[in-house]
Amino acid sequence: MHPTFGIRNKYMENVEEDFLYHFGFGMKTLDIRKIFGDTKKKSIIFTFFQYVCTGGSPTRLKLYAELFSKEFKLECSENLSKSDRFVMYKTGKVLWINHGMGTPSLSIMLVETLKLMHHAKAKDVTFFRLGTSGGVGIEPGTVVITTNAMNAELNNKYVQWIAGKKVEHETFLDEGVRSELVKIANEKKIPIEIGLTMCADDFYEGQMRLDGFFCDYKSDDKMAFLKELHEKGVRNIEMESTCFASMTHRAGVKAAIVCVALLNRMKGDQIKIEHDQYVEFEQRPFRLVTAFIKKQLEL
Amino acid sequence: MHPTFGIRNKYMENVEEDFLYHFGFGMKTLDIRKIFGDTKKKSIIFTFFQYVCTGGSPTRLKLYAELFSKEFKLECSENLSKSDRFVMYKTGKVLWINHGMGTPSLSIMLVETLKLMHHAKAKDVTFFRLGTSGGVGIEPGTVVITTNAMNAELNNKYVQWIAGKKVEHETFLDEGVRSELVKIANEKKIPIEIGLTMCADDFYEGQMRLDGFFCDYKSDDKMAFLKELHEKGVRNIEMESTCFASMTHRAGVKAAIVCVALLNRMKGDQIKIEHDQYVEFEQRPFRLVTAFIKKQLEL
Repeated sequence: MHPTFGIRNKYMENVEEDFLYHFGFGMKTLDIRKIFGDTKKKSIIFTFFQYVCTGGSPTRLKLYAELFSKEFKLECSENLSKSDRFVMYKTGKVLWINHGMGTPSLSIMLVETLKLMHHAKAKDVTFFRLGTSGGVGIEPGTVVITTNAMNAELNNKYVQWIAGKKVEHETFLDEGVRSELVKIANEKKIPIEIGLTMCADDFYEGQMRLDGFFCDYKSDDKMAFLKELHEKGVRNIEMESTCFASMTHRAGVKAAIVCVALLNRMKGDQIKIEHDQYVEFEQRPFRLVTAFIKKQLEL
Repeated sequence: MHPTFGIRNKYMENVEEDFLYHFGFGMKTLDIRKIFGDTKKKSIIFTFFQYVCTGGSPTRLKLYAELFSKEFKLECSENLSKSDRFVMYKTGKVLWINHGMGTPSLSIMLVETLKLMHHAKAKDVTFFRLGTSGGVGIEPGTVVITTNAMNAELNNKYVQWIAGKKVEHETFLDEGVRSELVKIANEKKIPIEIGLTMCADDFYEGQMRLDGFFCDYKSDDKMAFLKELHEKGVRNIEMESTCFASMTHRAGVKAAIVCVALLNRMKGDQIKIEHDQYVEFEQRPFRLVTAFIKKQLEL
């Protein structure tokens, strides 16, 4: 069962100022409840946000926001982030924010977004990560709907180091959201795989690519590792899933991870897709998640 | 003693194609030797690059490139990166590339930049990280010249997980570059501290901030940790130093880390600087590093 959303920090319960440094605004520089809150309950633009859609690339997230705005005839905000670290767009009840690459960057975005929710008094928000990834034994273009995230130590944990000590947090993704996404993907004939997602801490050696600057292992070691992952049920590798699946759960919000595979790592390391196909692949997680949101919001 | 620069991957020694995915170009889509190489030996614009200056923020790195271009009357290239993951500018022998936040993002940029050096047949390149950081017991505005990087386990190592196993690499920064930077800082009256830099894997809990969404420790625990760090010789905390100090050393290039402290963590967690002061603080690592480059290149 999901815990309820609420801030997990007694020092922050009743603060009068909180500057969200990596978004470039704070409680005193922006009317957070007006922009993100419910001051105009009857207008869809100003109700609480109910969905946070995220992914690595700023350009892709902007594009997603614009496509969603167009498709559902909802106003797309300007870039609400006043810092160049992340972009943030709002279309009705959906916030679109990029998270950069890797768990450290994602963790900053998540913490500040969760604090934003707290300040805006938003509740019942569902988080989606719409990403790209390397497939493990699956065809390029397949969308992996993640059951759980596995770290580079091959455990379903998000590892933090606090005060020189290792702290492990559970990873968890919502079953209800996942099964609904699977249903919609089948209806829309989007090719999917359901499985574990491995979260690596780098793109090259941590994923045993042979095309990096450094390579202390052999081609056979790479294949043996990918086979081991596949047998454990891993269907793709990316760089954010453990943090995403852990922080959202710990905060008490529902979450799902939907990443398209850009290649099958069993067959190579370099991403070789024509531009048009890349664009179409990139839209698949978007088509899936927005169909889910459309259904829930009855747009 | 420094190893010599050269690719550490036998699979990449003589490849005919290599697409640097996160820069959006490859050997077949861009004439790397023409843009980064020495086809016009007499023009300063087209000689091999000798310096890579990096830092987290794309806007700041673009600003640095423009300032450098103006100051030394060198052409500033367009953004050479064709992907939105990083920006890359060239001003004569200096490349300016941002690296995003955290070691995973930085590792991608470094690997692809080192591969770029290999393809461009560049040698004797010095890497500088010009960053922002949280000071430990030092005044805001102080520039920390890093002696060595310490990870969140409090060791001077960069930790990778490869094939489910922990791999630790040494961290090392060049003494010669460092002592020259210290000399220049003293001449230019830029306030500095020389000491260890701790590399955290997140901005909030990993740095024991009290202003995150989560906080399972107490104010006293935070102070005890910061004191422990200070006693060990740590003068600032950021999120990239171990990877930077390790990958550059392993590749055989010289490196230095020069980060300004935006606050003294002993006195708070929120960054509260007026815009003008922020701009001036942000210029200090730039002033220091570019004075170094100016001296070496006799500009």
